[in-house]
Amino acid sequence: MTSRTLLSTPSLGVCYYPEHLPADCWAADFDSMREIGIRVVRLGEFAWSRLEPDSGEYRFSWLEQILDLAESKGLSIVLGTPTSAPPKWLVDQMPDMVAVDANGQRKGFGSRRHYCFSHLGYRKECARTVTRLAQALGEHPAIVAWQTDNEFGCHSTILSYSDAARIAFRVWLKNRYGPIDELNQAWGNVFWSMEYRNFDEIELPNLTVTDPNPAHELDYRRFSSDEVDSFNRLQVDLIRQYSPGRAILHNFMATFLDFDHFKVSQSLDAASWDSYPLGALTLLKVPAAHKARQLHLGDPDLTAFHHDLYRACGRGRFWVMEQQPGPVNWAAYNPAPHPGAVRLWTHEAIAHGAEVVSYFCWRQAPFAQEQMHSGLNLPNREPDVGAFEVRQAANELSQLDFAPSIPAEAALVYDYQAAWTLAIQPQRENFDYFTVVLSFYRALRRSGLNIDILAPGARLDSYKLVVIPPLPIVSASLVESLKQFKGKVLIGPRTGSKTPNFQIPVELPPGPLQGVIPIKIVRVESFPDFVSLPLVWKSVNYQCHSWLEHVRTELKPFVQLADGHGIAYRNGNITYLTSLPEQSLLDKIVEDLLNEEGFRFSEIPSGVRVRTRGQYRFFFNYNPEPVRLNLPPETKFVLGGAEMPAAGVTIVE
Amino acid sequence: MTSRTLLSTPSLGVCYYPEHLPADCWAADFDSMREIGIRVVRLGEFAWSRLEPDSGEYRFSWLEQILDLAESKGLSIVLGTPTSAPPKWLVDQMPDMVAVDANGQRKGFGSRRHYCFSHLGYRKECARTVTRLAQALGEHPAIVAWQTDNEFGCHSTILSYSDAARIAFRVWLKNRYGPIDELNQAWGNVFWSMEYRNFDEIELPNLTVTDPNPAHELDYRRFSSDEVDSFNRLQVDLIRQYSPGRAILHNFMATFLDFDHFKVSQSLDAASWDSYPLGALTLLKVPAAHKARQLHLGDPDLTAFHHDLYRACGRGRFWVMEQQPGPVNWAAYNPAPHPGAVRLWTHEAIAHGAEVVSYFCWRQAPFAQEQMHSGLNLPNREPDVGAFEVRQAANELSQLDFAPSIPAEAALVYDYQAAWTLAIQPQRENFDYFTVVLSFYRALRRSGLNIDILAPGARLDSYKLVVIPPLPIVSASLVESLKQFKGKVLIGPRTGSKTPNFQIPVELPPGPLQGVIPIKIVRVESFPDFVSLPLVWKSVNYQCHSWLEHVRTELKPFVQLADGHGIAYRNGNITYLTSLPEQSLLDKIVEDLLNEEGFRFSEIPSGVRVRTRGQYRFFFNYNPEPVRLNLPPETKFVLGGAEMPAAGVTIVE
Amino acid sequence: MTSRTLLSTPSLGVCYYPEHLPADCWAADFDSMREIGIRVVRLGEFAWSRLEPDSGEYRFSWLEQILDLAESKGLSIVLGTPTSAPPKWLVDQMPDMVAVDANGQRKGFGSRRHYCFSHLGYRKECARTVTRLAQALGEHPAIVAWQTDNEFGCHSTILSYSDAARIAFRVWLKNRYGPIDELNQAWGNVFWSMEYRNFDEIELPNLTVTDPNPAHELDYRRFSSDEVDSFNRLQVDLIRQYSPGRAILHNFMATFLDFDHFKVSQSLDAASWDSYPLGALTLLKVPAAHKARQLHLGDPDLTAFHHDLYRACGRGRFWVMEQQPGPVNWAAYNPAPHPGAVRLWTHEAIAHGAEVVSYFCWRQAPFAQEQMHSGLNLPNREPDVGAFEVRQAANELSQLDFAPSIPAEAALVYDYQAAWTLAIQPQRENFDYFTVVLSFYRALRRSGLNIDILAPGARLDSYKLVVIPPLPIVSASLVESLKQFKGKVLIGPRTGSKTPNFQIPVELPPGPLQGVIPIKIVRVESFPDFVSLPLVWKSVNYQCHSWLEHVRTELKPFVQLADGHGIAYRNGNITYLTSLPEQSLLDKIVEDLLNEEGFRFSEIPSGVRVRTRGQYRFFFNYNPEPVRLNLPPETKFVLGGAEMPAAGVTIVE
Repeated sequence: MTSRTLLSTPSLGVCYYPEHLPADCWAADFDSMREIGIRVVRLGEFAWSRLEPDSGEYRFSWLEQILDLAESKGLSIVLGTPTSAPPKWLVDQMPDMVAVDANGQRKGFGSRRHYCFSHLGYRKECARTVTRLAQALGEHPAIVAWQTDNEFGCHSTILSYSDAARIAFRVWLKNRYGPIDELNQAWGNVFWSMEYRNFDEIELPNLTVTDPNPAHELDYRRFSSDEVDSFNRLQVDLIRQYSPGRAILHNFMATFLDFDHFKVSQSLDAASWDSYPLGALTLLKVPAAHKARQLHLGDPDLTAFHHDLYRACGRGRFWVMEQQPGPVNWAAYNPAPHPGAVRLWTHEAIAHGAEVVSYFCWRQAPFAQEQMHSGLNLPNREPDVGAFEVRQAANELSQLDFAPSIPAEAALVYDYQAAWTLAIQPQRENFDYFTVVLSFYRALRRSGLNIDILAPGARLDSYKLVVIPPLPIVSASLVESLKQFKGKVLIGPRTGSKTPNFQIPVELPPGPLQGVIPIKIVRVESFPDFVSLPLVWKSVNYQCHSWLEHVRTELKPFVQLADGHGIAYRNGNITYLTSLPEQSLLDKIVEDLLNEEGFRFSEIPSGVRVRTRGQYRFFFNYNPEPVRLNLPPETKFVLGGAEMPAAGVTIVE
Repeated sequence: MTSRTLLSTPSLGVCYYPEHLPADCWAADFDSMREIGIRVVRLGEFAWSRLEPDSGEYRFSWLEQILDLAESKGLSIVLGTPTSAPPKWLVDQMPDMVAVDANGQRKGFGSRRHYCFSHLGYRKECARTVTRLAQALGEHPAIVAWQTDNEFGCHSTILSYSDAARIAFRVWLKNRYGPIDELNQAWGNVFWSMEYRNFDEIELPNLTVTDPNPAHELDYRRFSSDEVDSFNRLQVDLIRQYSPGRAILHNFMATFLDFDHFKVSQSLDAASWDSYPLGALTLLKVPAAHKARQLHLGDPDLTAFHHDLYRACGRGRFWVMEQQPGPVNWAAYNPAPHPGAVRLWTHEAIAHGAEVVSYFCWRQAPFAQEQMHSGLNLPNREPDVGAFEVRQAANELSQLDFAPSIPAEAALVYDYQAAWTLAIQPQRENFDYFTVVLSFYRALRRSGLNIDILAPGARLDSYKLVVIPPLPIVSASLVESLKQFKGKVLIGPRTGSKTPNFQIPVELPPGPLQGVIPIKIVRVESFPDFVSLPLVWKSVNYQCHSWLEHVRTELKPFVQLADGHGIAYRNGNITYLTSLPEQSLLDKIVEDLLNEEGFRFSEIPSGVRVRTRGQYRFFFNYNPEPVRLNLPPETKFVLGGAEMPAAGVTIVE
Repeated sequence: MTSRTLLSTPSLGVCYYPEHLPADCWAADFDSMREIGIRVVRLGEFAWSRLEPDSGEYRFSWLEQILDLAESKGLSIVLGTPTSAPPKWLVDQMPDMVAVDANGQRKGFGSRRHYCFSHLGYRKECARTVTRLAQALGEHPAIVAWQTDNEFGCHSTILSYSDAARIAFRVWLKNRYGPIDELNQAWGNVFWSMEYRNFDEIELPNLTVTDPNPAHELDYRRFSSDEVDSFNRLQVDLIRQYSPGRAILHNFMATFLDFDHFKVSQSLDAASWDSYPLGALTLLKVPAAHKARQLHLGDPDLTAFHHDLYRACGRGRFWVMEQQPGPVNWAAYNPAPHPGAVRLWTHEAIAHGAEVVSYFCWRQAPFAQEQMHSGLNLPNREPDVGAFEVRQAANELSQLDFAPSIPAEAALVYDYQAAWTLAIQPQRENFDYFTVVLSFYRALRRSGLNIDILAPGARLDSYKLVVIPPLPIVSASLVESLKQFKGKVLIGPRTGSKTPNFQIPVELPPGPLQGVIPIKIVRVESFPDFVSLPLVWKSVNYQCHSWLEHVRTELKPFVQLADGHGIAYRNGNITYLTSLPEQSLLDKIVEDLLNEEGFRFSEIPSGVRVRTRGQYRFFFNYNPEPVRLNLPPETKFVLGGAEMPAAGVTIVE
């Protein structure tokens, strides 16, 4: 399996833990995998204590035996570096290698991810271990790819308030600002006599009496993100050296905002992510009624969003490294997937361009933390529900032969720095950047168009419509792109409201965006959940919420509150919102803009989602009941038909 | 007063603090106690700073004076060991004797229970003090019983994360597992490279980045419970040595689950508990409407449950050591008992077999933490409401002469290890073992039968019905008992779902229970509060909640969801539930099972509860309004009648 | 400007931060201030790092330049001492100068108020810095007043659990009690063997296993309050010495209860406070519907209450040092003032007797923590909405010439010690002293009478009615005053329920109040929010809540529950409540009492508030819609008319 074949023929995979089982189970397991259509196996990422049971005592032979066996069975291996689970002997060598939480409490051994990204001693140990592993096995023919570490950020592990982090932060700041007065100026430290005389005086922004300087916090967030990047690159560079020709990936997570996934992905060959639609829904800030209705299927847009996001992170290439196969163990409640849901999620990932969909995991472990996390097989190694759905999906996918895709026609700008900025200064409690982004994404999804997620510096290409959810810090290059861009642009409030140093721009918000739309924000209000801003537009009642900007402009608003307060302003192809519209209003504004670009919304049943890959158009029924697609009589069905059962998949050509 | 007389003639008692009062008040207080029917006085349990004001300076003469006075007044004394309130000079001698909380914060002096059960230095001090006290006064004729310490576990004081606990835990583990590899295997430590090379590497399961290994947590819970047991036994052994012939008790609490009360009770002569019906109701997870309705009377089943529990702990013998006499100080809100409620609670304890009902306390203290806790007397030593109700109850009880009781006909299995296991791995947030147990208990109580609480290893005897709420770890001996048992058995979900090492059984759940009912649980879902599972059974609508197990079996379910999912399965006399039924469904299932055993439910008004002791059948009206009992005309009333006022008590023969 | 002119001619002021701006902006800013009617400028209170950028390196010339410029422009300066924001170099000299929170965690540098009041080293540094500043500039003619520190208590900074606090607390206790046995007796330490052998054994009352002794907590609260007082006096004494003839103020806050503002004010020449009506409303415990309705205007009584409070603290003299000019940055949500609200708040302060109303701040800072706090001017120094309203208010005020005021006719007793006592022992969760006080204040406000707030030791003078919200500790002098007092008195429950040592009085509650009303409280219940106590009085349904006292008395209650339980008792001019009435019942009781004193309520529209100063009667419309005042035709309007717009102000003579 090479990158080329991966691109043209999507494959299925599985996560496997040979170290949990007697060696005499391995061959039978590999045969069973082949039998249901599995071609890729990820392993090794938690096996440090078996690869090196004591400092410097390496035990690679069992792993080599597995690799040989995989090779002989025609399975491709993704080898994980075990650095997310350092063994106790290592932690005891340097007890300060663990992270410290915002309350100043050092975390302990006993689970996983017990390390601080900034600890140089631990980085050295990681380099040593990855080097030895890659030197020993990196050129084994079974290995087609590597996974660095595991789920950066899981269990809120990005921000550390350790001594190691403090020292590294000071160096990072010195590199960014040069003379200390530059920093004092950039942060506005004169405000409360927070001026520093040198970088060694600077603390991490925790345990302050009241809020720390937001510029201080934002730089700490940037630093912490950069620490993930350099921690990851250290491994990437060693793997490239000792295991050439293999794709290097990391398995990212849903809705994680604590580091810049675009930036960390740059050193990888492709992005991958761990997709748990039912668990992820429990975390989403949506009404309980929506959670109850989608209990067994997941949110119809959340998974798709992340496929699109990680396709962008991977510069066109992404995998699902872990796909939920049944109930999980870790959410606030853990329902089972609807019959057919595992198959649906598999097709959806492929429709969004996934090269590999790999299930977590082969066998439900009967012990330890994740014993209630189902696998494709039961703890006793008999097949569970998921295995049957995988086999079906594998058969169906083998019938497809994808032509190249055409570019997406709609795009959404997504920015980790925006998330940090708005978390640091939301102006109201319970504000959540991701919820707002998802609202903009949902409005685009109603069109049935393919959607690209864009990093804020990305080229805007030839989209019909680009939506920009609140993006406080706007770069000059984005403004230039917008000036050249011919399609429609919809910009959310607070965009351009901050300079890169977390100051209010001297020209007032929206700062450099005033180059594309002549407005000035002179004031912004924020509101609690129990206050909304009613309005009537085109004879329909709507509400806005959370924020309201006061504008000075010659433009006339085309949506306004009863008192005339402008909600939406337009200058040519640029539309700017001064508040956050409820979903139906946002939907309508997006629909109008796409109509203007000549795109007509076709009728898609509520709860059905659409995605096109190559010549295939996929329909996914996220409803817990059947629906009927309204398609022309001449439609050519590749899979399924117009009558879609709950969790149904229909593919037309 | 001897054990024998205690058994045949229930007595009333009171908790008294002579150290709060000038010595010239004591005789008058004792006279007043006698006057209202008090025969037993507990004292001394917080008096360490008066018994030993400085290290080694013993002051026992005031206590001896009290004992002499009690003897002369015909009062029997329960002497408390003062170890729940070590004085400051002792804490200053070894500041690390206090417990450390899960966040790693050492607790401080200034209230009570400021010690860690594992601290060997403190154990030595306790042994020294108890020895000196028992040597000095243990053979005083006034002393009929001892109370060790006070309210183990109060203020969440069982779990300590101190250095002392860590050291003791390692020893405990070594004793349990022998070679370290046995522990690694038992816990499944390979999972996240958590394998240890020796016991000295093992930490307490706090401050981990995410959940610790559940097997690690469960062993820590077992260890912590065992620490209470050995701490208590240390005192018990010394008291037996120096104060022979006296009953030794401890005063347990309601709904405390952090240690195994059955196990700790084994070294005691009888169990006792502290009954605060109104305070306990505030802590119960029930709807606010129920709390409002029962505000002044308490939950109609909660107190009874604990009487039955502690009768089991005491192997047939139990006391109420502290009975609420009026408003308390410590709950989230503190209403007054309904007029007559103190009398009702007294009779109820006796009906359940209590040997002594002792009120807390004689006089409301005008100072310190509990100054808003009422007593039988006001701070100025004038009688409060409680004193009058006690006098009435004493008179009424003196009319009764109990014949021996016949064995209970229904039983409920209660298990502290089940509580720990389900707290460690509830699979959904807000799951509460005790609430579920109480639901099963309520279903039994509707029958009016006497109920026994059983430790999971207890003999099943000749009950008509045994209910087993969720019991994840099932012993082989319980399975054997069930095989022999002829009555009906109702088993809750998740029973048999774990091995003693907190693993999923190789034969899948319900593990060894498959020996009595041929089912296999292959999957379990969990649900939030806002999702319930509707069903129709015998034309009535019901709901289940929280969990849903998926079963492989040849059996046909006799209760099922609309989609056919089985809720209740039956194999001969064994019934197994795959979900948690709402109260009315559980009531109906229990009623049907008892009907099959030939027991007919008689009509008991809602809110009235029944208990039989010897030849007497007691009725308690827990309604805030009057009710009428529907009794045959020939009924012989010993106390009260068919018309019961609110808080009324009726006794028939 | 002298004190005399301040009294007869109210002035407007502004807070200014010249250190944020290039020196060449200063003159223009001063001109703009004059132009809109500003006469007073506060500055310097956060400028320590600019006044002393390194230890002992003083830089006062820029400040002198500003003072000279102010003098030349006819502006009066209030100079702030910079001690609420010590610079990093100072914190690094003595890292233990910061406060420690109740969890034992030391707070850090990076915002403000990072000091412990008890740290003697920091006090020394403050003394040094204030001395040098006052010596250098204290006699500058531009300076008319000083502000010590800034907002004592902001960000919950009064209570510190540091080593410095522990040491100081022991000294404070020794001074209070003398021999240790006096303390043991006063606190009732015998209760749980909490007796101390010497003062060095006493810890701060944090980190205890359960509640510390309430007497311990109360003394710690008193001590903490006294620490603020002595910290403040240190500066006051130095300023008086080196800057004679200037008024010394501190800027207090709304609803802060952690120190005794009456006591701290005694060393000041006048009180001042920081008025943020919209932010303060977000913190108030009132229903969301009320918060939504008053979103842009603030609570109609909350601001007035604080004007009256600080007029009392300042013994007749008070300022508003910071007045909200637009949205703020720090609340849970931050709406904009209604158009006209800044003007309304200005007039309201003046109506209540303010000498100066000073806005915070001149220019919205574009950087650091408060960049979203609006000013009178935008970050780019163009005028914002507030500037126009200030100009209007300045013009209107210049038309007024106040005659001397007559004494207020109603009064409310307010007590910080009561707040501490009830916070320590509320008897129910979610009890809030301030909310109850505000309820009593609202009942008085309906009358339209001027109201005085009284410290509990204040003379009662010739009021028609004095209301005493719950006041657990009653002094003998208050009882004496009540005996002499001829007007009506309305006393809330729990009054007189504690001795100064936090014990229940030997004569039972209401303790010494039994000298004015013959009742004895023998029991008190408390209730949750979901339970209320319904009653009918004069054919109207009402409810009481939270508490219910049981009374022994010969008096007949004139308000009672359905079961006869007395709610209100009367003895001559003294009325005592045994529960907390809902607002409408409290209103009615107050109205009846004032009617008896011959005062007739005039019809004031709902949402309108009234205050009289000198010959002027002010009406403020706190409704978000217009109202019409029902005034006699001959009414002489000085400002506005009978038709009041939302946020309108009408003044009649």
